[in-house]
Amino acid sequence: MKIRELIEKNRSYRRFYQDAEVSQEGLRELVDLARLSSTGGNLQSLKYVLSQTPEKNAQIFKTLKWAGYLKDWDGPEEGEKPSAYVIVLHDQTISKGFFWDHGIAVQSILLGAVEKGLGGCQFNSVDRVALAQALALPDHFEILTVIALGKPKEVVVIEELGESGDIKYWRDQQGIHHVPKRALDDLILK
Amino acid sequence: MKIRELIEKNRSYRRFYQDAEVSQEGLRELVDLARLSSTGGNLQSLKYVLSQTPEKNAQIFKTLKWAGYLKDWDGPEEGEKPSAYVIVLHDQTISKGFFWDHGIAVQSILLGAVEKGLGGCQFNSVDRVALAQALALPDHFEILTVIALGKPKEVVVIEELGESGDIKYWRDQQGIHHVPKRALDDLILK
Repeated sequence: MKIRELIEKNRSYRRFYQDAEVSQEGLRELVDLARLSSTGGNLQSLKYVLSQTPEKNAQIFKTLKWAGYLKDWDGPEEGEKPSAYVIVLHDQTISKGFFWDHGIAVQSILLGAVEKGLGGCQFNSVDRVALAQALALPDHFEILTVIALGKPKEVVVIEELGESGDIKYWRDQQGIHHVPKRALDDLILK
Repeated sequence: MKIRELIEKNRSYRRFYQDAEVSQEGLRELVDLARLSSTGGNLQSLKYVLSQTPEKNAQIFKTLKWAGYLKDWDGPEEGEKPSAYVIVLHDQTISKGFFWDHGIAVQSILLGAVEKGLGGCQFNSVDRVALAQALALPDHFEILTVIALGKPKEVVVIEELGESGDIKYWRDQQGIHHVPKRALDDLILK
């Protein structure tokens, strides 16, 4: 698959075939893509927690807040929840900062997931205190983001930004998720 | 190319065939990959400056500090400098923050570059004041990172981290650039 196709398919998916399992080895392959990616000053201070068992998945799920713009939707129902998670941590014993390493790592992991027929969603709205407790994380780990993964059970389409300029994504009556994107010419300075 | 191969080839390159031009259209295609990538809250607050003319390239080059760990190397000589740049900005009129969007965007751009037979290097060590002046950037743009691009003229190899645990990259007498990477098992919490 060409990189453009992979990126086009790499949308934020929030509903999944929950019974489609993601293997531990599959998750390790995805983290290996992040491992081989660039990190600022080559410091490699990111660490990862993997989850693909129902019990651990349930613990993580409870700490996530889903789709801020969909006000009447609280997240996927049982049967449509993610099958796996990768939690991205910063190991503060290695370095103070981590540049934009987590963005690079997340993109590598999600593009790898799409190539495997999976899809995912990355979270900033995480109850980090509750999640650190649930995982019994030592204090020197900072939770940067949670990536939910699974076999997508929804259609996500990119569309042009309307004249209102509203960037909020929305879901239509058929359940199709629409994501307005700015035009290329609006992103490049003259 | 499979995503793993693309990521393996996407090393930080710092010497280039300077006369191998990168077209304006090619740079636009790379930014389009960033445009189609995920951004926090779908805010899309990143903007881009493109450069592929000798004059503008020279202005940008002057503001960069190269390869912190190579103490006796000040950066590429004339003839081996980058042929193009993409400068990633945050547009503060759109949003206050930008999550880890720049990492995602940089990774999309660089993977696209590798697919085109190019390679690049991303910079945090940028004289942002001088660069903003050179580009006559309005105040509401914050320079996040500079991506140097070109046709790579050096070999970069990944190797296992030695027992010393030293992550500094180094260049051998043949000019090959070595990048020690931590092992996968050292990145995944048990």
